[in-house]
Amino acid sequence: MELERFKSIFEAHLAKSLSPKEPKGLYEPISYILSLGGKRIRPCVTLMATELCGSAAEEGLAAAMAVEMFHNFTLIHDDIMDQAEKRRGQPTVHTRWDENTGILSGDALMIKSYEQFESYEPSVFKSLIKLFNKTALEVCEGQQWDMEFESETEVSMDRYFKMIQYKTAVLLGAAFQMGAIVAKADLANQKNLYQFGLKLGTAFQLQDDYLDTFGTEDFGKKIGGDILEGKKTFLYIETMEKADAEDKEKLLALYDQDDRNDALIAEVKDLFAKYGSPESLNQAIEQYTIEALDHLSALEVSEKGKDMLKGLAAYLMHRAI
Amino acid sequence: MELERFKSIFEAHLAKSLSPKEPKGLYEPISYILSLGGKRIRPCVTLMATELCGSAAEEGLAAAMAVEMFHNFTLIHDDIMDQAEKRRGQPTVHTRWDENTGILSGDALMIKSYEQFESYEPSVFKSLIKLFNKTALEVCEGQQWDMEFESETEVSMDRYFKMIQYKTAVLLGAAFQMGAIVAKADLANQKNLYQFGLKLGTAFQLQDDYLDTFGTEDFGKKIGGDILEGKKTFLYIETMEKADAEDKEKLLALYDQDDRNDALIAEVKDLFAKYGSPESLNQAIEQYTIEALDHLSALEVSEKGKDMLKGLAAYLMHRAI
Repeated sequence: MELERFKSIFEAHLAKSLSPKEPKGLYEPISYILSLGGKRIRPCVTLMATELCGSAAEEGLAAAMAVEMFHNFTLIHDDIMDQAEKRRGQPTVHTRWDENTGILSGDALMIKSYEQFESYEPSVFKSLIKLFNKTALEVCEGQQWDMEFESETEVSMDRYFKMIQYKTAVLLGAAFQMGAIVAKADLANQKNLYQFGLKLGTAFQLQDDYLDTFGTEDFGKKIGGDILEGKKTFLYIETMEKADAEDKEKLLALYDQDDRNDALIAEVKDLFAKYGSPESLNQAIEQYTIEALDHLSALEVSEKGKDMLKGLAAYLMHRAI
Repeated sequence: MELERFKSIFEAHLAKSLSPKEPKGLYEPISYILSLGGKRIRPCVTLMATELCGSAAEEGLAAAMAVEMFHNFTLIHDDIMDQAEKRRGQPTVHTRWDENTGILSGDALMIKSYEQFESYEPSVFKSLIKLFNKTALEVCEGQQWDMEFESETEVSMDRYFKMIQYKTAVLLGAAFQMGAIVAKADLANQKNLYQFGLKLGTAFQLQDDYLDTFGTEDFGKKIGGDILEGKKTFLYIETMEKADAEDKEKLLALYDQDDRNDALIAEVKDLFAKYGSPESLNQAIEQYTIEALDHLSALEVSEKGKDMLKGLAAYLMHRAI
């Protein structure tokens, strides 16, 4: 599939970029996290957008690298905040080194992401950085809301959507628009690509919520992880909004329960199902996917380009679109 | 003095900029640290450079704000890394809130510093951000070296100078050059202003080392703080380089001693004095001040402008220049 082609271009560029630099204590953790792999969806999306807006994919490499570096900076700092020990099966930066190293290497990686744009001429450079600034702040706001939700019992659906969009979807939207900016696409195409990414990223995140609770074990993750962690996902918020007083009390008590076991998962899932929350979630996923495709229709790119985007959407949503 | 005029302009701009924004948990710590005050040397320097290169000081406000925001971002993160509880007599951000808040608010503040430049036209914008990227990375490298020196017994004088220059002096140099860039000064003037700031910042930092050990108590700080903390300052490194084997052992033992008291300070100071390290330090301060003034002579600005810079240097060095 096309994505593999862009991934190869990106990986080759990344491999060339990871030169050892002093002080090692600052730069080794940066090479480490960038070498942990992953699907590289965001940088591939930037290369794809660059190409389908009429430039060579390689023109988008610096912007693609900025997006990937920024994403990895957020991983380093989020892992400290979440006290996560593993990332892609390997020790997180603050676990392998220490928290101070994680804070400072993360800072340096964020600065390096800005540095990537220097290869573009001033007007493109400024457009890219303006979008990058806006997106980066939104990602921080999304992370802040996510942390605040942990200590709140009532999270409204509106705030939940804003949180997932800011924390994850805006960066996918920006990754698309950056490619369009590099290729000097007009503003309408830029905006449609941004919205396509934003809606698709939202649908993807919602699907992630669904699969965590109602997926099958072979998806890789343990089913019910969000419930065990007491996360306020779509399913929880929807059920809290629809449930009668008794079931609301029951759900609150289950989320408050000290002993977090498989029986708890089963009881919570029954409550979610009783109020049709999995169906509502599937409708929301469908709705966001449709909205993404509406922006795709409005795009003025070749049919081959649109097929490429549809292929990406199908790949991300694990189904034909 | 002229500095007060620039400080008033800057403080008025800052007060207007600190509007409450959601999520509060992210933005309140930013307003808090920016409101703690301080001498505002760096932003004043940017305004001063803007004016003496021929533009209205107000033109430099956005760049001045970026420099001050970046400096405050480093304070938030450094305070976490150093586990400092107080900053300008008030609780540090991670003490008043928590570490996660410090990490994330710091990140957002760094992004906001980049955002400040958006008011400049593309070519100025790009010049400013290139300088900013380079400087910001150097500041991170300086902080990394500073942390690494803690666990090293032998720090060379070369590495020490690089550390203090990167950790503090480059930002003063950049603050000057940014004003020059905003006022579209030619590259020679830009570079001379940068070097003036870099050398002056180095002299200032060296003087800080001197006063910490050989100053008088009314300077505000406890005398001998660096010795109690076992910091590898100029005085320590110079003495270690010059001392005979016996005194070297003695100094190492003193720095390794668990009981860190006033008697220890006195013994270390005696060793420093025995090898003429305070005099060497004063010579270095003198040397960097002279080099700063050489760059001032080379500057093509009005005599009034040069007097303003000399006034600043005299103010920073607490003496007539």
